[in-house]
Amino acid sequence: MLPRYTRPQMAAIWAPENRFRIWFEIEAHACDAMAELGIIPKDAAKAIWEGGKKAMAALKDDPKGNVEKVDTIERVTKHDVIAFLTWLGEFIGPSSRFVHQGMTSSDVLDTSFSVQLTEAADILIGDVDRLLAALKKRALQHKDTLTIGRSHGIHAEPTTFGVKLAGHYAAFTRNRARLVAARVEIATCAISGPVGTFANVDPRVEEHVAKKLGLSVEPVSTQVIPRDRHAAFFAALAVIASSVENLATEIRHLQRTEVREAEEFFSEGQKGSSSMPHKRNPVLTENLTGLARVVRSAVIPALENVTLWHERDISHSSAERYIAPDATVTLDFALNRLTSVVDQLVVYGDRMKGNLDSLGGLVFSQRVMLALTQKGMSRDDSYAAVQRNAMEAWRGNASFLALCRADTDIRQFLSDDELVALFDMGYHTKHVDTIFKRVFG
Amino acid sequence: MLPRYTRPQMAAIWAPENRFRIWFEIEAHACDAMAELGIIPKDAAKAIWEGGKKAMAALKDDPKGNVEKVDTIERVTKHDVIAFLTWLGEFIGPSSRFVHQGMTSSDVLDTSFSVQLTEAADILIGDVDRLLAALKKRALQHKDTLTIGRSHGIHAEPTTFGVKLAGHYAAFTRNRARLVAARVEIATCAISGPVGTFANVDPRVEEHVAKKLGLSVEPVSTQVIPRDRHAAFFAALAVIASSVENLATEIRHLQRTEVREAEEFFSEGQKGSSSMPHKRNPVLTENLTGLARVVRSAVIPALENVTLWHERDISHSSAERYIAPDATVTLDFALNRLTSVVDQLVVYGDRMKGNLDSLGGLVFSQRVMLALTQKGMSRDDSYAAVQRNAMEAWRGNASFLALCRADTDIRQFLSDDELVALFDMGYHTKHVDTIFKRVFG
Amino acid sequence: MLPRYTRPQMAAIWAPENRFRIWFEIEAHACDAMAELGIIPKDAAKAIWEGGKKAMAALKDDPKGNVEKVDTIERVTKHDVIAFLTWLGEFIGPSSRFVHQGMTSSDVLDTSFSVQLTEAADILIGDVDRLLAALKKRALQHKDTLTIGRSHGIHAEPTTFGVKLAGHYAAFTRNRARLVAARVEIATCAISGPVGTFANVDPRVEEHVAKKLGLSVEPVSTQVIPRDRHAAFFAALAVIASSVENLATEIRHLQRTEVREAEEFFSEGQKGSSSMPHKRNPVLTENLTGLARVVRSAVIPALENVTLWHERDISHSSAERYIAPDATVTLDFALNRLTSVVDQLVVYGDRMKGNLDSLGGLVFSQRVMLALTQKGMSRDDSYAAVQRNAMEAWRGNASFLALCRADTDIRQFLSDDELVALFDMGYHTKHVDTIFKRVFG
Amino acid sequence: MLPRYTRPQMAAIWAPENRFRIWFEIEAHACDAMAELGIIPKDAAKAIWEGGKKAMAALKDDPKGNVEKVDTIERVTKHDVIAFLTWLGEFIGPSSRFVHQGMTSSDVLDTSFSVQLTEAADILIGDVDRLLAALKKRALQHKDTLTIGRSHGIHAEPTTFGVKLAGHYAAFTRNRARLVAARVEIATCAISGPVGTFANVDPRVEEHVAKKLGLSVEPVSTQVIPRDRHAAFFAALAVIASSVENLATEIRHLQRTEVREAEEFFSEGQKGSSSMPHKRNPVLTENLTGLARVVRSAVIPALENVTLWHERDISHSSAERYIAPDATVTLDFALNRLTSVVDQLVVYGDRMKGNLDSLGGLVFSQRVMLALTQKGMSRDDSYAAVQRNAMEAWRGNASFLALCRADTDIRQFLSDDELVALFDMGYHTKHVDTIFKRVFG
Repeated sequence: MLPRYTRPQMAAIWAPENRFRIWFEIEAHACDAMAELGIIPKDAAKAIWEGGKKAMAALKDDPKGNVEKVDTIERVTKHDVIAFLTWLGEFIGPSSRFVHQGMTSSDVLDTSFSVQLTEAADILIGDVDRLLAALKKRALQHKDTLTIGRSHGIHAEPTTFGVKLAGHYAAFTRNRARLVAARVEIATCAISGPVGTFANVDPRVEEHVAKKLGLSVEPVSTQVIPRDRHAAFFAALAVIASSVENLATEIRHLQRTEVREAEEFFSEGQKGSSSMPHKRNPVLTENLTGLARVVRSAVIPALENVTLWHERDISHSSAERYIAPDATVTLDFALNRLTSVVDQLVVYGDRMKGNLDSLGGLVFSQRVMLALTQKGMSRDDSYAAVQRNAMEAWRGNASFLALCRADTDIRQFLSDDELVALFDMGYHTKHVDTIFKRVFG
Repeated sequence: MLPRYTRPQMAAIWAPENRFRIWFEIEAHACDAMAELGIIPKDAAKAIWEGGKKAMAALKDDPKGNVEKVDTIERVTKHDVIAFLTWLGEFIGPSSRFVHQGMTSSDVLDTSFSVQLTEAADILIGDVDRLLAALKKRALQHKDTLTIGRSHGIHAEPTTFGVKLAGHYAAFTRNRARLVAARVEIATCAISGPVGTFANVDPRVEEHVAKKLGLSVEPVSTQVIPRDRHAAFFAALAVIASSVENLATEIRHLQRTEVREAEEFFSEGQKGSSSMPHKRNPVLTENLTGLARVVRSAVIPALENVTLWHERDISHSSAERYIAPDATVTLDFALNRLTSVVDQLVVYGDRMKGNLDSLGGLVFSQRVMLALTQKGMSRDDSYAAVQRNAMEAWRGNASFLALCRADTDIRQFLSDDELVALFDMGYHTKHVDTIFKRVFG
Repeated sequence: MLPRYTRPQMAAIWAPENRFRIWFEIEAHACDAMAELGIIPKDAAKAIWEGGKKAMAALKDDPKGNVEKVDTIERVTKHDVIAFLTWLGEFIGPSSRFVHQGMTSSDVLDTSFSVQLTEAADILIGDVDRLLAALKKRALQHKDTLTIGRSHGIHAEPTTFGVKLAGHYAAFTRNRARLVAARVEIATCAISGPVGTFANVDPRVEEHVAKKLGLSVEPVSTQVIPRDRHAAFFAALAVIASSVENLATEIRHLQRTEVREAEEFFSEGQKGSSSMPHKRNPVLTENLTGLARVVRSAVIPALENVTLWHERDISHSSAERYIAPDATVTLDFALNRLTSVVDQLVVYGDRMKGNLDSLGGLVFSQRVMLALTQKGMSRDDSYAAVQRNAMEAWRGNASFLALCRADTDIRQFLSDDELVALFDMGYHTKHVDTIFKRVFG
Repeated sequence: MLPRYTRPQMAAIWAPENRFRIWFEIEAHACDAMAELGIIPKDAAKAIWEGGKKAMAALKDDPKGNVEKVDTIERVTKHDVIAFLTWLGEFIGPSSRFVHQGMTSSDVLDTSFSVQLTEAADILIGDVDRLLAALKKRALQHKDTLTIGRSHGIHAEPTTFGVKLAGHYAAFTRNRARLVAARVEIATCAISGPVGTFANVDPRVEEHVAKKLGLSVEPVSTQVIPRDRHAAFFAALAVIASSVENLATEIRHLQRTEVREAEEFFSEGQKGSSSMPHKRNPVLTENLTGLARVVRSAVIPALENVTLWHERDISHSSAERYIAPDATVTLDFALNRLTSVVDQLVVYGDRMKGNLDSLGGLVFSQRVMLALTQKGMSRDDSYAAVQRNAMEAWRGNASFLALCRADTDIRQFLSDDELVALFDMGYHTKHVDTIFKRVFG
């Protein structure tokens, strides 16, 4: 987590005080279930909630001081949950000996991690929703803004800027679905003891805690929640990051000097370069390209974490301490930055038109070729006829339409009127409605 | 694709003749739709199917020869689809000029790739089903086979070998669901022209072909099907590969000399080592560990492929030529090898029992601690009392039970009978039914 | 290895017959050393060379048939080296029992792998040399070809196309050095027995074989040569692949329609698109971008291979069977393709000039700002003055020079002559000689 | 950077105040060179040093406050170097307008990054040196401590614990060399202006600054120092991290309950588990396994950063803000943790001996086989004879020696005395001196 790429709401999930809050809730809900099952006194469960609430209030009042207290204990015990329970016990008093009965640290740690990841997923889903809204708004606004479609960076056929944005909108609807699925992956609770056999803790405790926290029950846990779930979660984030880069790259291309069809919004006080004051650089989308790399870099450690030894080893833990905050915080930031870029993007429709026209009608080449074929010219011949004139137009010697009109082979199959009619922009946009209907319903 | 790690059914998907078969079907179905729409003559569509079927028959008779013919043409045109259409045209005759009308190469290539990936996904789903069956069989068989659960490689508490396998079964049910979702991701059809605007091809053609091939329609394609779909597909494969490694690693651990609780099946003629004839090495599961790395290595290129320039560039193509066959073929092989390993795994129940007993009852330490707490000893005191005796037992000086019996602090809270009763294996297995019910229903 | 991205010389390294040739040489040289040490009869060593040479001749005459023979034996023994030795033994006769005395399979396999990787490195070094030659030729040719330098895709200041190429030349001189270092990493020989203690084989055997094969001796091997060496090797290849992508991306940018400053050579018969005959796409460099991803994808498995269990496990082997041929063959192909692209690149100097002039002198903005500062205007004021006029010029309202001339603030510090003198292209190229001298000496 | 995995010295490199210190030094040295060249007044250069030193003193006195001041300015200018120069200017006064003359931000940023990376490399080299010292000490101490060598996790032949450690020592001498090479890669200085042409800054300024900072001059920079250098740097770190994991994994294996040949040092107050007080888990080496994944995860972003657009884009920057501190800080921490683990490792020589003897002499199987071959038995026959008895011994029915003695086929070739002589541990350790000499000289 770097402050400059961090939004407070997501950062709060990963703050120690939030972790301690979730730990307490897990322990307290577990005590409720144990009290209900007659394992611990009902009074104890009540005392635990009461003492715990005081602890949570103290934590809220002075997060730094209390976190430091837990850390100080941990430096002796070298065990985070025991340190936390010791601190918590001071607020609860004698009943604290009933806390964590028959539970193992990972019951708390892994379930807590699930809660954090679901909280993170919820924020990310909200982020994607805002991005979708921005994309939709701009797509509808530019539904009919003509622009050249490019394959291989080379002018191909006309499309509209709205269609471009609709494509990215569709990608992010898929990404939203992936996030929802990823959230399900990691929204599980495990309170099953040191090797997952429930020897010391009744499965009904797990069920109760899961229900209270909005999680499902992990069918088989082995001290830990299996890490294929987390791998799937971070893989989903990596795919989304790649979509972020894809849209960012589109904008970077559109902003380059020779294209200049769109630009990131550039505020008044902003300086583009210390040396070249005229420069307006697509630095936000370049930045997003880099941030995408960061989010993606979590996927390999997450995959490597799946293979734990026997019922668990703790190799995954240190890696997760980095990748979980970094990937969620960075993606949250990136989605919001991208939303703002899309929302405020300056679109130069006249430049789009200018670029579209710059090749003198060459973009209609396929249509001419098709017409020739339909009129009976062989595919090879029509290809050759079109290519011949296209090359001439490309060299800038004349417009493609003028050259076709003058080509006797072509004119054997197409009249002048027929030829001119082929050079119609509406031909390329006639199905934009269909596409928009598919995407936006 | 390496022959030694390749199964024929999966390899067949990636053979050029299968690609050509799919290409033909796409083109022929598209012609049907165009004929229905009055764009090309119905006779032509019929002739295309007839000529094409002859081509397919020739391809089946002599795959190598016909593939070489297409390759020869491609070496001139440097364009694979044009080369294929030229070869196909010879079987169809004059009507061949109606083939591929208004379509662009990627309409064929990307839709064909979707068909291949769905075929691959279907095989992989079948693979996982067979693995699940093997895991279930062995899990049920060893539901009550006691074994020590290990965290950090250190003996923790007893569990059963069936519970271990049930955990892997649960992981592979998740993997099956991921495969099904991944299949949906890439099961789309795009026939939308050079920049996805349907300028030269009616959207109904796409709908018809999609329906015939069992695909859904890509809402917005931009010459290509967006690559976030493929990234999600290969990410799913990577997660599954990690689960393969996880189970493989478990078996490797169980087979090590000091543990020897299970062994890969070792056939009669097999030689373990050129120098140490007594050795039976877990080479299959070690091999699976390596194959998992190979499958996972597809995920980064697949993520990098998402960012194409504008309406497409072709940078993804070369990477996909490697990773698509390699990842699917290797995972198919790995899943089958793993199934065979699980199915034939030699399980040494007596060694499991021996290892379980080797620490003199130390595995009951948490239970003793818990009982002490419940009897009123403070958590810290009970922890200390148990740790003291546990350390002594660990050093091999006496059994943990004997030591506890002789400990006056402990005896203040627990009678001899109560102590002995705590050392009961059934305590640890009492919820195995619950776990099995969760997993196997 | 995909045939379309494979050159025969590199492929030959990975052919089974080459592996068998190297295996034989290792065994035969080892026999020589053992004979010299009196461990086996000198006659036997002689017979082994003689029989082995017959085997090698047979292998050369009929590689397929003989490889198949070894494979057939391996299907029974499930052990590749034993299968090979059995086949070899038939050519040698009774003396064959002295082959492989005290050696373990990995002695042969790992040393053989070292030989293959050094052979591959030698080819790659040659590839880079040819690429360097092409880059140097074109750099010298275009040393003075003016072009706009771009940061963030935005016009910055003038440079020359030769300087661009010189930068890539410098990158590939670094890459050459990395290859040479990577070659040293893996050019080691290990013949040290099952756990590397030389219990059954004298260290002098290893020394002899190493010397004969041009390898150094592995100081400590543990049945295998340590895999950090191979990780470093594949990491070097990954860095080089990234440099390939960097240059490929530069060319892709230069070829895009709006820029069109350079183009990949486009042969006569070549068809750019099945639908748009005018298109000349940078497909070779796009292809190189994808191939770079493939080469890079070897780095993670190679890093994961470093962690073997104890004295070795065989998890690395299956991964290496893929990545070693794929990464070396693909990089070999990519370097050659890139060399050909650079060598034949069509450079449009007039387009470079046109783009350079397109912003009406804006590229001189920093120089004007600097001159103002030197004349005494504050940095903030000069920045503001330049930015103000630059923005106006950017909007296309007038040339930057004209605007500066009309700006009274600027004219307080700079006379008309002084201003005009600042707009001098030679100002930007005055140190090109220095750069070329640094790079080419 | 996570506090728990961070050492202060390495963290200090990445603190903003260190960055500002380096920035100032670059600017001030550059001013010296410019003054020497007559570009700016000598008095100005002097004033810049004087004012700058005051700024540095203020920064040292109140790092937080002054960093916040720069940040506040940056929030307006959205440009870090301009913000810094504004802050610095307040200390320098009017001469500050001569600071950064003709330079571009990246001249400062990239050269500063080089300085930081070389400082980090120096710390890492020191780390490796301490690890080497610890490994050497323990290797010499256990040079003759017999232990079983294991391939595939299966007992193979005897070796010594010292030889194991010597192997890791050798790996880290290679890693040290890789670090030194990686340091050279990134120890370059670029002060060459917006597109690297030195249009506004004399190359001699770059030479002077480079010399003063102990860097070499970047032959061709393009506003930025080429990122293949940084990719090579992070790749080196990734290889080293893999070596860390390799050794950590060895220790994890040795500590597992069934093996228990070595253990991480376990301090008195430490609690191994909240539930199982007897447990001593190899948590440090498991942690190192996870940290290795984190360090390695930098390599893909670093490789992706190589491909910048034209003379530069800024996509690399955000990724580097994460990976540069994370990879260097984490590796620094990991190397130190590993050193401490090695240094304090508890080695159980008796357990090593016990495990070694547990298979009843099976580890001598290859030696017996070899002796049989040397006495004239065919390789196949001797293999079969040894395997037959080995299998019997493995099943625990009798010791391998006893079985061999009773085997009539074997006894035809080996007398009783000859057989017994083969079962000699010294046979396996006779070349330990050779190995130690190779490694430690």
